[in-house]
Amino acid sequence: MNNIIVMKFGGSSVATPEKIKIVAARVAKKSKSYKVVVVVSAPGDMTDDLITKATRITLLPDPREMDMLLATGEMQSIALLSMAIRSMGKDSISLTGPQAGIHADNVHTKAKIRKIMPQKIIKELQKGKVVIVAGFQGLNSNDDITTLGRGGSDLTAVALASALKAVECEIYTDVKGVYTADPRLVKDVKKLDLISYDEMLELAGVGSQVMMARSIEVAKKFNVIIHVRSSFSQEKGTLITREVPLMEDVVVSGIAYDKNEAKLSITDVPDKPGIAAKIFGALANANINVDMIIQSAARERYNDISFTVPKSELKNAVSILKKVSCNIGAGRIIYKEDVAKVSIVGIGMKSHPGVAAKMFAILANKKINIEMISTSEIKISCVVSEKDTQKAVNLLHKEFGLNKSNTR
Amino acid sequence: MNNIIVMKFGGSSVATPEKIKIVAARVAKKSKSYKVVVVVSAPGDMTDDLITKATRITLLPDPREMDMLLATGEMQSIALLSMAIRSMGKDSISLTGPQAGIHADNVHTKAKIRKIMPQKIIKELQKGKVVIVAGFQGLNSNDDITTLGRGGSDLTAVALASALKAVECEIYTDVKGVYTADPRLVKDVKKLDLISYDEMLELAGVGSQVMMARSIEVAKKFNVIIHVRSSFSQEKGTLITREVPLMEDVVVSGIAYDKNEAKLSITDVPDKPGIAAKIFGALANANINVDMIIQSAARERYNDISFTVPKSELKNAVSILKKVSCNIGAGRIIYKEDVAKVSIVGIGMKSHPGVAAKMFAILANKKINIEMISTSEIKISCVVSEKDTQKAVNLLHKEFGLNKSNTR
Repeated sequence: MNNIIVMKFGGSSVATPEKIKIVAARVAKKSKSYKVVVVVSAPGDMTDDLITKATRITLLPDPREMDMLLATGEMQSIALLSMAIRSMGKDSISLTGPQAGIHADNVHTKAKIRKIMPQKIIKELQKGKVVIVAGFQGLNSNDDITTLGRGGSDLTAVALASALKAVECEIYTDVKGVYTADPRLVKDVKKLDLISYDEMLELAGVGSQVMMARSIEVAKKFNVIIHVRSSFSQEKGTLITREVPLMEDVVVSGIAYDKNEAKLSITDVPDKPGIAAKIFGALANANINVDMIIQSAARERYNDISFTVPKSELKNAVSILKKVSCNIGAGRIIYKEDVAKVSIVGIGMKSHPGVAAKMFAILANKKINIEMISTSEIKISCVVSEKDTQKAVNLLHKEFGLNKSNTR
Repeated sequence: MNNIIVMKFGGSSVATPEKIKIVAARVAKKSKSYKVVVVVSAPGDMTDDLITKATRITLLPDPREMDMLLATGEMQSIALLSMAIRSMGKDSISLTGPQAGIHADNVHTKAKIRKIMPQKIIKELQKGKVVIVAGFQGLNSNDDITTLGRGGSDLTAVALASALKAVECEIYTDVKGVYTADPRLVKDVKKLDLISYDEMLELAGVGSQVMMARSIEVAKKFNVIIHVRSSFSQEKGTLITREVPLMEDVVVSGIAYDKNEAKLSITDVPDKPGIAAKIFGALANANINVDMIIQSAARERYNDISFTVPKSELKNAVSILKKVSCNIGAGRIIYKEDVAKVSIVGIGMKSHPGVAAKMFAILANKKINIEMISTSEIKISCVVSEKDTQKAVNLLHKEFGLNKSNTR
């Protein structure tokens, strides 16, 4: 079977009966040209409300029961949406994650999809029905409902698109697509027509959260074309796809920033094998994500090691590092919270030398001090003072020509 | 496995996290002496709220989707209750109707239980867990969720009690048990310690709705002892059970009334075979429940036929009967809305002649006119003017000695 399309709608799109009818009309229209599978999230704030209810009962709700509770949100969305579509004369059927053949592992509240057995979906599509699947949920090997954690509905949509060999996975959002920068910070942003999985992953990694990284990873792995577009307009959005040659004509695709990290340094770390492993092993044991590690080898036998951690983990990280520093005979722990990471992302960098140098020059010319630098093949990130964030993002956006009409 | 008890809590008992904790404490306490299976309804007004939401989308929601929607209410209750019980240190697990092995037929929104496969419940009980089952729902042969219609959670509880050979099925309500009459109408009512299935069925049939008739029928069929008791006290309630000898010592167990029926008559119905079938066939085709049919054979070759129908169906019934009357050559259609049915119920009647005569005399002495009479082995019902309801119920309650200390 071909000509299948997956449409995913988030919670705000199905928050009220009136909004559900708008989604239904859109699905019914699409079903004239495609076999349609719809994935929906729980309505509006329902998931948060249920979590609040649970914590009024106990501060440590059992994870299996939490999943039983949270799964009801998506079930309400699929039932109501199916009613709405049927009332418009198009046959449809709602399926829970378990009914849709979504098998997950046993890690309650943040399960991974193990496999998809889409026979039931295919059977219903063959009958001419729109199939509406509850996002965010699956069945584990105990026949229990599990949920997939944050961004889980996107993951359901991408995984179904892959299993069904859909032509496209449409992700409907409240923005028109992926932009060259955050529209709240930069006035003349442009919507990108096309972006590669890798670029999108780098953007997701630096705080531009149109989609969670895990869904993009799955899309990349199985080559699923994602179409991020607006719930409120018929306009085309942004296609997330594998690299195509024309992408390399554009050096930088987007500018991103992240104010959620803090900078940490340990001074006078003895330059001996195994020392770095001790430092980062201790942080990993505490489940603290470390980013942008830099080791300065200014002096003999001693280094300063700097890195960033999420601001929410800073206090915890500092207390762990004080102990580690003592053990390994290092110096002081220095930290700074009012920093931001500003990044430029673009596949074109690969074939255009000198991009990093240009970025540093742009910032230096306007007296923006760079505190840390890290680079990957398609991303360059600089840590700057938090107060310089907006200025830096706007400068880079303009100087890399992103305010001009998009060429992709 | 024995020593199992089923506890059923209605929606008002689990309406808030605070109330859920009270139920949990009660369950945890019971689990010290019994293996406990709990059946719960959807919290508070959730079912009604979901129906309202559905009708804001379409006035004719698809029944399968309605069941998908409504099933979420009970799922929330079981998850939250299980969290609460676990937080008190007692292990527990929530199961949806399908997970609990409750198989139903394919009639969405008012399915019947087909069979129960309680292996999963038994396995979890053997592990020492309290098992919490979603009431009102089951799985049909298409692997779809179905709901059991009004009173469905009671039905789930009684059916589980039967399948598990439980010692008792406790139905927790906001009243202390079954009373000799409606406490809103009669001041000195008594709580009954014991009532037979048949008496309870007759009471349910005349508007005394502590429980729906269908659950009592199932309990009778499988000999499940029901214990109707208060959520708010430890006091014993009323046992509904099969007849035991001492029940016959009491002639009348309870007085009931029903203001929801209207009286209808067709005059001058030709006395020919098949005529009654035509009249009541037409009403049955329109799904109108008919009760208390009386045929007066006052004159040769013509009868008056009277009966009662639910007030909500009166208009519909009248218009159907006008057509039927034309077809069969009968006379006028006469109806009266301001009537009430007052009934006395008691197994003791079987062995005590003259009960009907006593009832008629009690009413006649106080100038209460009897418009229709119908009797069964253990019930006598009279239709009187609606304005006489309270007076009639109080009179009968007193004259049959129900205001005296209960002897059962």
